[in-house]
Parts: sequence; structure tokens; C-alpha cells
Amino acid sequence: MHTHPLSQLSALETTTARDVILTYHPDKAIFFREIYLQEPAKAELVPYLELEHSGNLSPTSPRPQRLAKCQYDVVGGDRVPEYHESVVDVERKTRINHVVVGKEHQASLTLDEFDIFVKTCQESPLFKEAISKFKLPEGFDYVIEPWPYGGRDRVTDDSRYFQGLIFAQDKRSNNPDSNFYAYPIPIIPIMDYHKREIVRIDKLATGGKGDSLTASDADFREDVIGHCTTAEYVPELLPKGTRKDLKELNVLQPNGPSFKVSQDESLVEWQKWRFRVGFNPREGATIHDVWYDGRSVLYRLSMSEMTVPYADPRYPFHRKQAFDFGDGGAGNCANNLSLGCDCLGVIKYFDAVMTDGEGNAKPAPNVICLHEQDNGIGWKHTNWRTGRAVVTRSRELVVQFIITLANYEYIFAYKFDLAGGISVESRATGIVSVVNIDPGKVSEYGNVVGNGVLAQNHQHVFCIRIDPAIEGHKNTVYVEESHAVEMNDITNPEGNFYQIRKTPVERSAWFDAAPEHNRIIKMVNTDKINPISQRPIGYKFTPMATQLLLADKRSIQSRRAQFAQHHVWVTKYRDGELYAGGQYTLQSQDEIGGVSDAVKRGETVANEDVVVWSVFGITHNPRVEDWPVMPVECYQLNIRPADFFTENPAIDVPSMKNLASQLVTSSCCSKPSL
Amino acid sequence: MHTHPLSQLSALETTTARDVILTYHPDKAIFFREIYLQEPAKAELVPYLELEHSGNLSPTSPRPQRLAKCQYDVVGGDRVPEYHESVVDVERKTRINHVVVGKEHQASLTLDEFDIFVKTCQESPLFKEAISKFKLPEGFDYVIEPWPYGGRDRVTDDSRYFQGLIFAQDKRSNNPDSNFYAYPIPIIPIMDYHKREIVRIDKLATGGKGDSLTASDADFREDVIGHCTTAEYVPELLPKGTRKDLKELNVLQPNGPSFKVSQDESLVEWQKWRFRVGFNPREGATIHDVWYDGRSVLYRLSMSEMTVPYADPRYPFHRKQAFDFGDGGAGNCANNLSLGCDCLGVIKYFDAVMTDGEGNAKPAPNVICLHEQDNGIGWKHTNWRTGRAVVTRSRELVVQFIITLANYEYIFAYKFDLAGGISVESRATGIVSVVNIDPGKVSEYGNVVGNGVLAQNHQHVFCIRIDPAIEGHKNTVYVEESHAVEMNDITNPEGNFYQIRKTPVERSAWFDAAPEHNRIIKMVNTDKINPISQRPIGYKFTPMATQLLLADKRSIQSRRAQFAQHHVWVTKYRDGELYAGGQYTLQSQDEIGGVSDAVKRGETVANEDVVVWSVFGITHNPRVEDWPVMPVECYQLNIRPADFFTENPAIDVPSMKNLASQLVTSSCCSKPSL
Repeated sequence: MHTHPLSQLSALETTTARDVILTYHPDKAIFFREIYLQEPAKAELVPYLELEHSGNLSPTSPRPQRLAKCQYDVVGGDRVPEYHESVVDVERKTRINHVVVGKEHQASLTLDEFDIFVKTCQESPLFKEAISKFKLPEGFDYVIEPWPYGGRDRVTDDSRYFQGLIFAQDKRSNNPDSNFYAYPIPIIPIMDYHKREIVRIDKLATGGKGDSLTASDADFREDVIGHCTTAEYVPELLPKGTRKDLKELNVLQPNGPSFKVSQDESLVEWQKWRFRVGFNPREGATIHDVWYDGRSVLYRLSMSEMTVPYADPRYPFHRKQAFDFGDGGAGNCANNLSLGCDCLGVIKYFDAVMTDGEGNAKPAPNVICLHEQDNGIGWKHTNWRTGRAVVTRSRELVVQFIITLANYEYIFAYKFDLAGGISVESRATGIVSVVNIDPGKVSEYGNVVGNGVLAQNHQHVFCIRIDPAIEGHKNTVYVEESHAVEMNDITNPEGNFYQIRKTPVERSAWFDAAPEHNRIIKMVNTDKINPISQRPIGYKFTPMATQLLLADKRSIQSRRAQFAQHHVWVTKYRDGELYAGGQYTLQSQDEIGGVSDAVKRGETVANEDVVVWSVFGITHNPRVEDWPVMPVECYQLNIRPADFFTENPAIDVPSMKNLASQLVTSSCCSKPSL
Repeated sequence: MHTHPLSQLSALETTTARDVILTYHPDKAIFFREIYLQEPAKAELVPYLELEHSGNLSPTSPRPQRLAKCQYDVVGGDRVPEYHESVVDVERKTRINHVVVGKEHQASLTLDEFDIFVKTCQESPLFKEAISKFKLPEGFDYVIEPWPYGGRDRVTDDSRYFQGLIFAQDKRSNNPDSNFYAYPIPIIPIMDYHKREIVRIDKLATGGKGDSLTASDADFREDVIGHCTTAEYVPELLPKGTRKDLKELNVLQPNGPSFKVSQDESLVEWQKWRFRVGFNPREGATIHDVWYDGRSVLYRLSMSEMTVPYADPRYPFHRKQAFDFGDGGAGNCANNLSLGCDCLGVIKYFDAVMTDGEGNAKPAPNVICLHEQDNGIGWKHTNWRTGRAVVTRSRELVVQFIITLANYEYIFAYKFDLAGGISVESRATGIVSVVNIDPGKVSEYGNVVGNGVLAQNHQHVFCIRIDPAIEGHKNTVYVEESHAVEMNDITNPEGNFYQIRKTPVERSAWFDAAPEHNRIIKMVNTDKINPISQRPIGYKFTPMATQLLLADKRSIQSRRAQFAQHHVWVTKYRDGELYAGGQYTLQSQDEIGGVSDAVKRGETVANEDVVVWSVFGITHNPRVEDWPVMPVECYQLNIRPADFFTENPAIDVPSMKNLASQLVTSSCCSKPSL
């Protein structure tokens, strides 16, 4: 059988695409950014999936073309490189689409560019001069931490910039993982990428409460990190080492896992669930064609975007605003996961194929892990008359990937459960972003989490994209609320009644969370009626009531992150419309082609191919406990069946005792006789 | 050494208390409801705990009296029994306090009373006549499900009532656990407890949308359950049996658990945490005197109350409103837990001593379980320069108890983590409360979850009581919010700044959740300053933004559940003020002596002995998937350190690989070569 249309590009397909591109630019140098699967148009994929699910797929069945999305710079002479995007049919070895992207947009960054930034900085006279003003302690050296530049101040400036935060590292331990974030140096070099030149050094204020918003010479004390102190996290550098009394806890699955993964690593089957796992440089792991027990639930599920704006009003910290999916790509930043570190039990890892600057396929091993985990009691009932308890465990299947963006880490997981539920989990961890603060001072812009170290207040706003397929692709979104009803003789004589209000979403729109009304978003198929309840079958979620973007609506931070200003967006499906903050977020000044623009189209979405976007966030005003590495801050969106089934789908989960569990022995604790 | 003042009463202490009580009522019959530890007054316990923590406790140290709270009816002749509450010093064998509770209050119910209700029903001519109107299918018999009566309609009626829901059970399988809730019969018998008489049969409407609010003869079809169908959950009765492909997942702790429990089963020590576990008939498991690494955090933590009002406006469903802690007692309803069912790994069970009607000590084995569990990644950072990842697991210590209230189950857990956090988790499961609905009809008052079975809309509103002791008993509560600031040249030139507003709570007050402002409740000690951040040390939580009570403010449902109308209550500590809905909730008409009254005192709470109450809930509009047993609906309050420590307290957690984890083998899934 041929490759499944949702399987990632193979290494061969990747280099084939590269070779096709090169033939179109024979005399130019090409800098490849990404080559990855261009997912088929829905109109082409759906008939294929229908054949597949009906068991009628044959080697001669019609199938979508295998397409490669190729993103690359065409570098020629002294002109500013042009950024191109092409689509290549890798079987027919032909380019089927080609766009030279306008200069108003910037391509996503690559790690190669970060390397260029570091090198350019190191060689820059401007930077050398700036850094020479500081006298580092004996045995310290500086470290350059590249960052995206944030939003442009002027629309007319189409230069490609990078900025960097500067730290010092204690080299005396000879340990390259000594935590340099503990020693922030108050300058930010700015590189013009095309010129390969550091064009400006922004100086950072190091003051506290009541001090000026702008940097002054007083902020550039020679011994600027003299008051900073060590804050290590690698075990061999911890002053007291690691604790010794946490005893082993192992997860054993003597008969192996309950899941199956296809040879091509794209299809996962587990406990009546069946779905495909994709992976791309931008979104990381994606979930496709989700079915439960022979019934379709979702077409596609993905982390669409996130933005991390910092709230320090001092210049130029408004440029600290990352779009971790659009700027750098969650897939590009995915960790290569390790057995026994990132999850427990029996684990299946998925590899990916990435691309280097020359368009070579670059293996990225273990970028996704798949495992089962126990999540406590799933359901229980005790008949108090007989004393008979029936109790089942909640087992989850977890598709996890972890990304590192300089200092920060995010752990993303798609979790499937035995009761027909799907949860999308995000855990924030890693090292909070810090800047230098003068000795003894405190600040309104953050919290002093270590000596001389101010962790700035910031927000993380995430967007999950849900493309439902509730037994078909024509679905309707309902906003459902529970409302108090005033006591009255006719409908509410005792005052205990409350009313459920259900409103279909007719045209594309946004909604905010409204926990005071128990606002729920339901995605239903109005043509399929649950035979028990006589209501349309569906799935629902409660929008997470978290704080939305705080930046002033007129600010660049806000203009380029429209998606972060409402909790729920409902749009009509369009091929390729996957990114809440727009295709091009790097240095963006406005959200263009993002979810807010999609809503503005005002399309009919009732009983249509509809897409739902769920936004949630963390307003992160750091605690001292977040230093030097923060404990996970965990958020979860729960997508649950709502009259999709005719009973609890987990009712047939066995309730046998787990025979491996044990009573404590008397060595640690004993039970006196009554 | 003597018994710790927080240890539960022993069986001997219980019967001693009983014997003391009997001497005061020589000529009367006494019906004992509860005998349990009366916790010492704080003024007496604190000095003892100070001695204990300073290591200066000796057998001759002053210590609080061992006191037993005794609740009992004095039954005499033809008078209505009087309800008494006494406190007995079990060492001095003397009664030190005695109250005859006024007739405006009702004692909490006991399971003995439920038995009396069932027996009275079975013998009642009124009930027999009512039930005889229905013709049950061959092989069916009726089942009586006792319920608390809900609120009284008339202030002057001080009778003690019980009501019951009636179902039919299919006896043909000869299985006493066949699910009778699938066959609801539309009558509710009412018993006058003192008269031991069924005084009324309330008839229930069985109509649907558009039908009358009151029952008519049409609702009493002879074949009233003819259209209802089986809905089993015990595995041997499932038509298709249980699934076979969920493979074993075991948690093994080869070196035992990491916790220690004292001989008397009250003291738990784990990973720098140290606390005591209590258990009483009303609240179930309680947590006391919580310290971390030699520093005090909480004085007491408990589930205080919950209320479950039903929203069906048809008479008499406004009386379906349980206060599961105040009416029946979570401790009284606690499950006896089983190894390998209610948790995995190495488990320590705690027993309790309960009381029978004669005041005999009645052992209640395994009412609490204690175990460790893995909760995914605790913190992680990858240095992208070196590729070195340091990743630790989040381990939790869980104190769990589970209660069954007729059809419903709640799973409560106090969870301690490695990063200084404490979470209180509540999982709702069990069988939703249902009533009969005519064939083919649907309803605005609930959802048809099975044939002929309407699951009524309802709410669950919980209250957690937090008595903080942030390095001492004088603490201050702050309400902290993050607010947008309009762009301006002086303080917010780029528009990215947001402001944190901190307001101390000076006098007792309530607050609601305000996720739009990222409202956080901080409990701090203003006399203890974090040396790093220069802010007061504290713990914080985000009030859960869930819907509050919907019943009309004038309704009895609402008047008796004031606590359910705000998310956070801040009160000044008073001995014995533990119950958010008041001491006496059974048949209450108003919340008396609950948290709303405590706030009304208007006491100063800044830098005082302050108590914080956190309210959250579920508006539960049932899904078909909630039938016949609902998958857990999980809520969690996260209490987290906020500048209490000088770094992430989990930074020293080892990051070793878990060697028991395994790669999948090729039998289930294979990895093709690149």
C-alpha cells in the first residue's frame, strides 16, 4: 500500500522536494528554512478517509498528491534575500505552487539564524565595546541568548532583526550547564540580519520602584553582576546535592501497552480510539482523523499558537513578546525525549524529519512520546445496601511533546481517556526570563527571585485549534448557558429552577468564557440525534476562564495578538487556516490572516464545516519559588462527549483489583490493633 | 508518651464517654448519634504544638484535655425526643459541657434513621396503597431510597421528616446489585420520624416539555416503568461483559513508600512535609498542623460543606437538596477502601472509630488511604546549547477518602507535592439522581439519560476551609489582581505594562472569583519578609471560577446555603466554627451560624487569626454519558507557596532516569529505519 496522505514526508521525499526547488533557481544560492508535508486539501483528503474507514481502500484508489511545503530564501548578489514558499508534488517531481512572500512579512526564524546572531555579536565592534564596559568577576564569561525581535515600531521598516539578552556564566566549575541566567547584563544587541551587523545596543534600566523608565549611566556599573548569586539546577552543581529519600516509583506494564501503532508510525489505535499523529516544524505534534468505536469525532486537533508578552514598561522590553509557534516553530524547538525521564511505563517514541539550511533531511529522533498512564479513579459506585463497590481506573493515552524556547519549556499533551474524553494539556516550566536589578531594590514590573535578578511579569496565552467532525464535517456550534430564573408562580414556584439557554452560532464569531453563566461550547451534528436524549450528538468544552491579554489595545503587543483577546473563536473552515496569530508572526505589527480576520469574514457556520479555537492563558507574576527552574504550571482543556454516546463509554472497563498494589509494611508505619 | 491531642478517640475513650453520658440520664433511653474527638481549643493546642515542634515536649508537659463530643437523643415516654450535645473529659470522666439543642434545629441524620425510614415505609398502609397503584413487571420488586427532607417550608413546623425516592429492581438475575435506579416510580413518601409514621405520599409529575408542574392522575399509569430499560454497571450483569484489551498497568515501589506514619496513625512525614490526619463523622479526613521543612504552613485544612440543590421546579423537587456534610456526615458515609481498587502502589490505610446507637465503638476500617503517585514532569530545563536536559518527576502524597451518599459518590483528596504545593481535589462520580419521565418526552428540567429516566439538572457546591498558619497564627489575607493600564507617556509608553494591585482584607468579607482580573487570594505573614523578594512570605490560591448557586435568593434552597453564593469568605477564627453552612443543616430553613454569619460579625482580620473559605462547584446538566454511572468530574484547588521559600523547593529532586520504563517492542508497533 502507498504512504498515507497524513504520514510525514520521508527523508527521501524531503530531499526530492529540495532537488525540485533547486532546479527552479539554478543560478542562486538557496537557504532552506523548512520542508515538510503540505497536508492535503480537505476536499481531497475526506473522500480518501471515507474509503479508508469503509474498508474500500485499494492500491488503485484515488488519493491526494504527496505535497511538500518548501520555505526558503533565495540569496543573490548584494540584494536582500527573497523569501519564497513553494509547494512541490514529490511523486511527480514538480512545483505546483510558488509565492514570493512580500517584504511586509518575515519568515519564521531558524536555529541557524540564531547561530548567525551569536557569531555576529561576538565579532561586532559595537557589541565588544558595550560589553567591555562591564567588568565580569574572575572566571566569568558572557553568554548571548538570541531572541525574536518582537513587533516592529514602524510599518515601513522591513528589515529583519534579531535581539539578544546577555548574561554571564561562571566558568570556574568548568560545567557548561552552570546557570548563566543568574547573571543578567543590562544590554540588548540588535542585529540587522541581512546586513549581518549589530546595528544598535539597547541599554536596559536596572532600577527599581520609583526609578526612571529609561536607562541611565548609573545602570552601567562596572560590577553590574557583583551582587548576583549562583542559582544552579543541574544536580552536580547543587550546593547540597539532591535529596536521597525519595524512593523509586515504577510503572510496569508486564503485558506491554494497550495501544498499537502502524508501521509508518502515523496511526494509533487504543481502546476504541483511532487517530493519526502528525508532526511539523511549526505546530509540533498534531492529531488527525479522530474516531471512537467507528464514529468520527475530530478532523484535526492542534496547538495553534501562543504569545508571551512581557509587561515591563521600560524600553525596549515591549519587544519581549514571543510567538513560540509562529516565530520559531514548536516542532523546530521540540526536545529529543529520553526513556524514563519524560514519562514512565512502556513508551513509544516518534521521530521526525527536519531540514537543514541546504535542504538535507535531518533526523529528529524521539520528538513525540506515546504512553499510557493511570489517572486515578474513573468511576465508582458503592451500593450501600450490599456494600458492593464497583470501581474502575481512569487510564489515559498521552501523546506528548516538549519544546524549549531559550529559557522556557512547555510540555504539551493530547490525552485520550476511556470515557470518550480528549484533553489538551499545557505545562509551563523552565527558567523565567530575568533582567538585572540594582542591589536592594524591588520593582512593580516583576519580582526579585534571586539576588540582582528581576523576573518580569508576563502572560502566556495559548490557542488550541479544534476542527470537529462529529459524525461528519457539517457541524454546528452552540453556546449553552445556565441562568437563574426569578421565583414566579408559573414556572418557578419554589425558586429552585434554573434555565438552560442554547444558542446556535450562525455566523463566525468570538465568545469569552462566562463561568458565572456556566457557559459551555458544544459542537454538534444537528442531523444526528441521540436516540436516548433526542438531542443532537456532540462534544463540548468549558472555555477556561483565564485572564486575556492585558496590553493596551493600541499597543503593538496587542495588535499583533488579536487571538489572545477572546476565549473562543468560531470560524468557517478554510484549507491552510491553521494559525491563530496569522501565518507570519515574526516582527509582525498586526495580526494578519489570523483568527480575528477569519471571524471578520462573517461566514455562515451553522451546519457547516466549522472550526473552533480555544484560548487560555497564565498571567505569570513570578514567585521566588519559580527560581531557578519553575515547577510546572498546568492547564488543561477538557473536550468531552455530550450525548454523543448512548451510555458512559467506560461502563465496560474492568473493575478487577490491581494485584501489584501492596499494603505498607510495618517498617515505615504500623497499624495498632483496635 | 501520652496520646497526641489530635489523635482520634480510641474505642476505649469512646465507650468511656458513652458511660459518662449515661450516668447523667439514669432513667432515660439514650439514642447515640455520634461520639468523636472534640478538637482542643486553639489557645490550648497551640502551646502544646509549640512544645512539640521545639522538641521540648515531655510526659509532664501541659496538654489539652482529651475531650469527646457526644451527640445523642434523650428518649422519654411519649414526649418528642430531645437532642443533646455534651462534651466529656474522657480522662477525668466528667461532663464539662451540656446543651439541649433547640427544636429549631435538627440533629444530623444517622444510617439507623434511614433503616427506620425503610422499615416504616414498608409497614405503612399509606405507602402500601400508593405503591399498589403500580403494576411492576414480573420479577420486579420496589426499593426504597431514603433521603434527607430538604428545607422546611414553614418555620413553625419542627417535626423531623425523612423522604424517600422509590425505584423498582429487577430481581430475576438474583443479583442484589442490579441497578434499580433505571426504574423510578413517581412517588415520594414522607415520614414523621418521631411518630415513626408515613404522613404523606407526594406524587411526582412524569411529564415533559410543556406539561404541568404538578402531578396528575395521568402520571400514575399502572405500567409506569414499562418503558424503562435495564442499565447495569456491575460487570457480571453487563450484556457484553467487560472489555478484554486493557492491559495491566502496575505501580511498584520496590523500596517501599517514601512516607512515614506514626504508631498512633496521626502523624505523617514525607519529603519535608509533616502533618497530622484526623477523621470525624462529619468532615471525614481532616489535615492538621501542616509544616514544611520546619516551618508552619496551615493549622487545619478540611472539606467544610457541600450542597446539592436540584433545579426541577415541579413539587416537591425543591426538597431535593442535600448538605452532604451537615445532613449525613462525610465521615459516616466514608467507604471502606480496598487494596488495588481505590489507588495503586504501596498504600497505608487509616481506620476510624465510629459509634452505634448504643454508644458502642464501631470500627470503621480503611476509611482513608495514603499513597504516593507520579504526576508527570515536575520541572524541566534543556540547555539548547549543550543539549543537556534536566527533568524531574512531580511526586504527590495523597490522603484520600471516598463517600457514598445513596446514588452519588465523591472522592476527596488532599495532595501534597514536592514543590511546596497542597491541592484539594474533589471528584464527583456515582449514579445521577433520576426520576420517571413518560415515553418519548423530553424536559427542560434535565436530560433523558436512559429510557423513561430523566436525570434532573442540579448543582454541587463545595466549600473548603483553610485555616492558615504561615509561620505563625497571625496572618493577613490579600486580594491581588492584575489590571490593564491605559497607554500613557509617563508609566506605560508602549502599552505593554500591567499593574498588580494588592489589597489587604481588613475586616471579614466575601469575594468572588474574578479571572478577568487574575484575582488571587494570598495568605501572608506580614511580619516575616522573604529575604530575596522583600515581600511577606505567604501561600496563595486562585479561587475557582465556577458558577455559584442559581436558586432565587428568596428560595429556601438559597437561604439555607448562603455559603454557596460567593467564592471566598474571610473570617476571624473562632473555636468550633468549622461548618460553612452552619452546624445544623438538616431541614434548615436558613443558614444559621455558617460562614455568612461569621462574616457579618465584621471582625478585624488583618494580622489576626484568620480563616479562608474557598467555594467552587459544578453545574451538572447531565449528559447521556453520565448514565448509568458517571465518569469522574474533577475539580482541584491549588494552594501554592508565594514567596514562602527562597527558591523552588523541588530544585533538589533527583533527575535520575527511571530504569523500569521500557521501549515498546515490535509486537505492537515498530519503528522503520529512516
